[in-house]
Amino acid sequence: MADTTVYRASTTAPVNIAVVKYWGKRDAKLNLPTNSSISVTLSQADLRTLTTASCSTIFTSDSLTLNGEDSDISGARTQACFRELRARRAALEEKDASLPKLAALPLKIVSENNFPTAAGLASSAAGFAALVQAIANLYQLPDSPSELSKFARQGSGSACRSLFGGYVAWRMGEKEDGSDSLADLVAPASHWPSMRALILVASAAKKGVSSSSGMQQTVASSGLFQERIKTIVPANMDLMEDAIKNHDFEKFAEVTMRDSNSFHACCADTYPPIYYMNDTSRAAVRAVEAINAKAGKTIAAYTFDAGPNCVVYYLDENKDAVLGGFADALKAVSGFEQGAVAAVAGVIDETVTSILQEGVTRVIMTGVGEGPQKTEEFLVDADGTTSKR
Amino acid sequence: MADTTVYRASTTAPVNIAVVKYWGKRDAKLNLPTNSSISVTLSQADLRTLTTASCSTIFTSDSLTLNGEDSDISGARTQACFRELRARRAALEEKDASLPKLAALPLKIVSENNFPTAAGLASSAAGFAALVQAIANLYQLPDSPSELSKFARQGSGSACRSLFGGYVAWRMGEKEDGSDSLADLVAPASHWPSMRALILVASAAKKGVSSSSGMQQTVASSGLFQERIKTIVPANMDLMEDAIKNHDFEKFAEVTMRDSNSFHACCADTYPPIYYMNDTSRAAVRAVEAINAKAGKTIAAYTFDAGPNCVVYYLDENKDAVLGGFADALKAVSGFEQGAVAAVAGVIDETVTSILQEGVTRVIMTGVGEGPQKTEEFLVDADGTTSKR
Repeated sequence: MADTTVYRASTTAPVNIAVVKYWGKRDAKLNLPTNSSISVTLSQADLRTLTTASCSTIFTSDSLTLNGEDSDISGARTQACFRELRARRAALEEKDASLPKLAALPLKIVSENNFPTAAGLASSAAGFAALVQAIANLYQLPDSPSELSKFARQGSGSACRSLFGGYVAWRMGEKEDGSDSLADLVAPASHWPSMRALILVASAAKKGVSSSSGMQQTVASSGLFQERIKTIVPANMDLMEDAIKNHDFEKFAEVTMRDSNSFHACCADTYPPIYYMNDTSRAAVRAVEAINAKAGKTIAAYTFDAGPNCVVYYLDENKDAVLGGFADALKAVSGFEQGAVAAVAGVIDETVTSILQEGVTRVIMTGVGEGPQKTEEFLVDADGTTSKR
Repeated sequence: MADTTVYRASTTAPVNIAVVKYWGKRDAKLNLPTNSSISVTLSQADLRTLTTASCSTIFTSDSLTLNGEDSDISGARTQACFRELRARRAALEEKDASLPKLAALPLKIVSENNFPTAAGLASSAAGFAALVQAIANLYQLPDSPSELSKFARQGSGSACRSLFGGYVAWRMGEKEDGSDSLADLVAPASHWPSMRALILVASAAKKGVSSSSGMQQTVASSGLFQERIKTIVPANMDLMEDAIKNHDFEKFAEVTMRDSNSFHACCADTYPPIYYMNDTSRAAVRAVEAINAKAGKTIAAYTFDAGPNCVVYYLDENKDAVLGGFADALKAVSGFEQGAVAAVAGVIDETVTSILQEGVTRVIMTGVGEGPQKTEEFLVDADGTTSKR
């Protein structure tokens, strides 16, 4: 009688929000970037993907369920992840005949986010990081997070940074095969644990241009982009690593804001132009500037990914000034927990306040957090059925 | 008894809208630009400044009235214009003793626009061009428009291009004293008379950053700007002159759109960032793209100055497709004369249509036009009083 064991492993994985942005591929097949990048991993208490990877003879083919819906796994990127991880498992099995032959079994993967995918919150990064980590756990692979980050990178570039907690760099690498294009740790969350992130979710009619095709349009048509990847980003990488290592928030903030500006400038210089930021986004920029002006120093930094949402980084010690300054604009918005902080009236001008009141649909208050966590919470039951939740 | 003659001369001057943008000064005192630029002069039937320059012993001091309000003339720029023009007149008087001694007389200048200044329609360019031309007429200076453009340039950089009609280049020049930084004619209006401009005036709460200080912030802080002035603009200048000389609208349009994008990208890359375009502006970009997609070729080009207004250039032969495409979005807007053109439904999608319906407050339909015109219409009466109008 055939072995009908359902082998299972689960992990959670975090979202990360870059402070030096990834934008542009030098090799679209291998997902090799035109430049290095740095991100902050956000706490999984607020934003995480939970993924269970399972395999068994009872499954008839590979499958992937995301938030209750069947997901297409025929894409080259998902296939690349599966293929690479299976090859690593097969190598282990070849060396040790006592290991169960998992590499040959169909995979059943079930994944869920604790936040709405539609919010445009880098869900693909958390998703592919969780996918790779869950399969690595299932296969009991000995690979380090950096090694695993290479597989996640092939699924979704920025996913490689979600294999670590804290402050994470994706080194672009030089090799043609991409073997040196991987994530490494700049500093763990414990090095600078007071970093907070206030996420202003802005209503967007729809996402105009996917980041994957958008970045290749920028590479192909922006006259300013080469300057960004040759000069601006390498300088920002050095400045940012120094800022993180030295707990220098003012430098961290300035580089974060300048790099976001440079990235969106290159989008606007793309032909035809790509616009991710809208009037709400720009109002958030003005709000952060007003909060910093009021404080007399830089205590908050804005950054925008490929969408209108604003992520504001600040340190816990400045929460009174930052959250208090935003309070008039955000107090009625879902998710804004003002807590013990008093509203500081009049920091943000009336026009900006009313644009934010109208355009911000939801707020997420979080902070720097840890990398993927192995968990005994399973989305696939021991008999191979998807858990009812 | 003293001569109480009131010497008078009047001129009109046009607005110009650049297709390769001026942004950045290499010498703020002399208004010397970081790069050359090209503009289209717009018809004075729709947009013009009328200026009367007068001088007489009966005036007690220099004065300037703009649209019925006293204007401060103590600024270095206005003073530079007055000083330079007086010096030219004084030189003539020195050579020919029979000439009346006008250079020593107080100037009374009265100026009126036929369009609202607040609309953000390059009124300073028309204003300074008219000021210089009116005084040059009063002083009967023999200088060519290019010579006069140097004086206008010191008043407001882009004003130098309004000394000519048609298609006009401002050559940045190389000399430290600015004597080779002047406007010249690429082609007269008659060379390519079918060029039309549809101006979408967008409501803006207020202009955030003046162009004069904004451009210097860009020069000082944008990491991408040097690439624009060293590489992008020189290439665009060559392409644009070729396009104009060869009546190549598709090339004209692509360079116009790319250069506007590059300029606003550098604004967004400024630290802190400068945003002139708003959601209405970006909807106009999408509308132009949709009209071109529908036509299967580039028949319309957007460009934006230091404000949210969109100027759409197109050829008269394509008015059915361009105005017809815009008709659903603009038919209720003041100034949109659809004329014999039938609305072409569904070219612009619903979201873009509703943003334009809400955000465009006024439309101006015009086209390429002539340079300053001497006129016998005076804003100062023969007795020196300001005309009642």
